[in-house]
Amino acid sequence: MSESPSAKHRVVVVGAGFGGLFAARELRSAAVSVTLINGTTYHLFEPLLYQVATGILSEGEVAPPIREIFRRRRNLDVQLGWVTDVDVEGKAVLVSAPDGRERRVPYDSLVVAAGARNSYFGNDGFAEHAPSLKNIDDALELRGRIFHAFEMADLEEDPEARRRWLTFVIIGAGPTGVELAGQIAELAHRALKGQYRHADLSQTRVILLDAADRVLPAFDAPLSVRAERQLTRMGVDVRLNTRVVDVDEGGVKMDTGEGGERIEAYTKIWAAGVAAPTLATRIAEATGAGTDRAGRIRVNPDLTVPGHPEIFVVGDMAALDLPGVAQVAMQGGRYAAKVIQRRVAGRPAKRPFHYFDKGNMATIGRFSAVANVGKLHFSGLLGWLMWLGVHLFYLIGFKNKVTTLLHWVVSFLGRGRAERISTVQQIHARNALNGTPRAT
Amino acid sequence: MSESPSAKHRVVVVGAGFGGLFAARELRSAAVSVTLINGTTYHLFEPLLYQVATGILSEGEVAPPIREIFRRRRNLDVQLGWVTDVDVEGKAVLVSAPDGRERRVPYDSLVVAAGARNSYFGNDGFAEHAPSLKNIDDALELRGRIFHAFEMADLEEDPEARRRWLTFVIIGAGPTGVELAGQIAELAHRALKGQYRHADLSQTRVILLDAADRVLPAFDAPLSVRAERQLTRMGVDVRLNTRVVDVDEGGVKMDTGEGGERIEAYTKIWAAGVAAPTLATRIAEATGAGTDRAGRIRVNPDLTVPGHPEIFVVGDMAALDLPGVAQVAMQGGRYAAKVIQRRVAGRPAKRPFHYFDKGNMATIGRFSAVANVGKLHFSGLLGWLMWLGVHLFYLIGFKNKVTTLLHWVVSFLGRGRAERISTVQQIHARNALNGTPRAT
Repeated sequence: MSESPSAKHRVVVVGAGFGGLFAARELRSAAVSVTLINGTTYHLFEPLLYQVATGILSEGEVAPPIREIFRRRRNLDVQLGWVTDVDVEGKAVLVSAPDGRERRVPYDSLVVAAGARNSYFGNDGFAEHAPSLKNIDDALELRGRIFHAFEMADLEEDPEARRRWLTFVIIGAGPTGVELAGQIAELAHRALKGQYRHADLSQTRVILLDAADRVLPAFDAPLSVRAERQLTRMGVDVRLNTRVVDVDEGGVKMDTGEGGERIEAYTKIWAAGVAAPTLATRIAEATGAGTDRAGRIRVNPDLTVPGHPEIFVVGDMAALDLPGVAQVAMQGGRYAAKVIQRRVAGRPAKRPFHYFDKGNMATIGRFSAVANVGKLHFSGLLGWLMWLGVHLFYLIGFKNKVTTLLHWVVSFLGRGRAERISTVQQIHARNALNGTPRAT
Repeated sequence: MSESPSAKHRVVVVGAGFGGLFAARELRSAAVSVTLINGTTYHLFEPLLYQVATGILSEGEVAPPIREIFRRRRNLDVQLGWVTDVDVEGKAVLVSAPDGRERRVPYDSLVVAAGARNSYFGNDGFAEHAPSLKNIDDALELRGRIFHAFEMADLEEDPEARRRWLTFVIIGAGPTGVELAGQIAELAHRALKGQYRHADLSQTRVILLDAADRVLPAFDAPLSVRAERQLTRMGVDVRLNTRVVDVDEGGVKMDTGEGGERIEAYTKIWAAGVAAPTLATRIAEATGAGTDRAGRIRVNPDLTVPGHPEIFVVGDMAALDLPGVAQVAMQGGRYAAKVIQRRVAGRPAKRPFHYFDKGNMATIGRFSAVANVGKLHFSGLLGWLMWLGVHLFYLIGFKNKVTTLLHWVVSFLGRGRAERISTVQQIHARNALNGTPRAT
C-alpha cells in the first residue's frame, strides 16, 4: 500500500453484524486503516439462527470467523472486545477487553453498527424461563432445551408432566417466532417421528402467541393470512390478539379469558421484541442526537449523527423508518463506507442514504415460505425456492454454502437433524428435584 | 416380530460408545428387547474429538444422535440417564434421570460399556487449569480456550503475558496428546497464519510432555521415533521423561532440572491418563469380581463377570490385556451381543472373546500419520491416507461422511477452521482482572 497521508485515516467499525461487515468489506481497497471491533470472534448470519436452535445447521455454518472472512485484508485489524462508550470529543471508542481491561481506540471516522438486543419490555424476569434468540449462545441454549424436552417427555410417566414437556410456547409471531414454531412442529410431526418409544410426539402442541392481529406484521396482509394458514396446517396453534402477562417455570399466563388464561409448558421462547443496546443511549447523549422510542439514535439522511459528520450509525441502531432486517444494515454499512472513501479522496459527499427494498421473506416449514418483493407476493414452494437461493447467495464462504445445502437436503428431503447436541452441562443444569427445567 | 417367549428377553446396554453401540446394532434382528441407556443423547466418535477442539469439525459430525442411528429399529428403546448402580441379585440397573429421579430398569442380560473417564492420578485440582478431552463438553471448552488464547495474544501488549498466551502445554503423548499438539501447531504455523496484526504466531510454542521415554508408547518403537521427528519438524517441543508435578493458572511445574522447571502457559491440556468410572467399582464389589489397578472389572474369557453369566463387560471397563481403543470395544460389544443371541436361541455358547487387532493409528498433522498394522509400519502420507479412509469408513451416517470429508478438504488442502466458535459465556468466564483465564 502506498504511504500517502490519507493512508492513515483511521476507520473504526463497531460490530461485525451485517452493517459492520459490509462497511469493512466496502473499504477493502480504500486508503484507510480499518479496526473492526466485535464482542465475539464471528460474524453472525442471524436469519438462519433458528436452524441452529432446531438442529439443522451447526453454529459454525451461520457464524464464520471474522478473521477468516478478512484473511487476505492487509488494511484491517480485528479486535475482540465490547465497546462501552464513545469519547466523541476525543474521537476514540472505549473498549472493554475479555480480561476486563479498558482501552481507547482512536478514530477519524466511526461506523457504529452494534445491532439490537432482545427486549422483554421491562419484564426481564421472563428471560430465565423464556430465552430469546439473538446470538449463538441463545441458539445453543434453545437447542438444548428443545431436544431435551422430547427426551424428558419420553422418560416422564405422569401424563400431566409429559404434556408439559410436549408443549412449546413461542411468544412473538415475527419471522423468528414463525420460523421457530414451524421448525418445532416439523421436529415433532416429521423429523423425530418414530424415534421415541414412550412419548407420543403427535400429541406435541406448538403454540404461537402474538399481541398483534396477524402473524408477520411486517409483510403485506395477504401473506400473513397465507402464513397463518400454512402454520395451522402444520399443527401450530396460532393465537393472535393475545398478550403474555407472566412467564414462570411451568408455563405462561395470557390476558385472554376471564382473569387470564394459562398454558402449562416447560419450553417457552421469547421472540417478541428488540431494543437498541446501551451504547445507543451513550452515543445519543454524548452527541445530543437523541433517540426514538425504541432507543435508536436519530441520524441525518446520510446516516451521520447531527453535528458529527465523522460518526455513522447503520442498521438496527439508527432511527430510520425502516425494518430491522439484514438488507437495511448491509446497504447502510456499504453507504457509510462509500461516503468515507469519497471524503478521504477529497470528493464531494454522496447523496443521502436510500434504502433499496429487495423484499422480505420468512420460511414456515420445508418447501414453504412467504416472500414480499415490492408489490409481488410469493408463497408455498416458489417462495421457499426463492428463500433458499437468497440465503445460499448471502451465506459467507464456499464451504458454508456447500455444507448448508447438504444439511438442508438431509433435513428437508430427508428427516435428519444432525446438529442437535445438548452438552452434559446443559442436561445437568436442568437437574432439579421437581423435574422442572432451570435456566443455565 | 414373532411373539415367541424369547421375544421378551430384555437386554440392557449401558453406554452408547463404541462397545454399547455395536452391541445394540448386532442385536438388530434378535428376538430380544434392547434398552440402551446413555448419559447423553449422542454416540461419540471419540477418535475425532480432537478435531472438534481445534475447529475442524462440528460437534454434530462426531456425535450423531443415538435415536437417528437407530431410527428404524423397533426392538430398541433409548433412555437418557446415568446408571449409578446395578442390583445384581434383583437383575436391574439403577438409573438417575436428568430430573434427579431414580428408576430401576430390569434386565435378563446386561452389557456394561460405560467406557473410561479421565484421570488426574489423584491431582483433581489440575482439572480446572488443564481440562482433558473425553467428551463434547470438554471439546467445546478446549475449543474456546485454544482460539481465545490467540485472540488474547493479539490484544495483549505486555510481551511476557503475550508469550504466555502463545504457549500451549499438552500433558501426555498418547494419540490424543500427539494429535492435539500437531493440530495446535498447524493452527499457529499454518491455518491462522496472517490473521493477526499484533501477535506474531510464529512465536507460538506447543510443548508436549510425557513421563515415558517416547511418544505413542502403544505403537512399535520405530513409529514413535518417526512421530516424534515429524512433531519436531512441525514445531512441537517434545519433552520426554518429564513428569508434571503441579499445574496452576499461569503454567505447569515439572520434575526436571534442579528443584523443578516451570513453563509459563495459559493453555494447558491434560491427555495423560484414563481410569474406570465409579460404576466399575460398584459392579466389581457387588459381584465380587474385583478390579485391576486401573479400576477395571475382572472378567471371564467370554467377557462375563465371574458367577454372573448374564453380565457382560466390554471396552475400557473390562480388565483385559488390551489397549483402550475403539476396535476392542466394538468387537467386545459385537461378541457379547452374539453370545446373548445364541443363548436366547438355545444354541451353545460361542468360543471365548478373541480380539482381532486391525492395527493402531494416530495422525500427527495434515498428510502425516503413523499406522501400526500387525508387523507393518506406515507413516507420512501413506499412513495419513489410511487414517483418512478408516475414519471415514467408521464415521456414522452418510451426511457425516460427506461433510467431514468436505471439512477435511477445507482444513487440510485449504487452511480453514470453520468450526471455531467461542460462546459469549466462554469469553466472559475468562473475564478476570489479572488477565488470566478461569475455568468455566
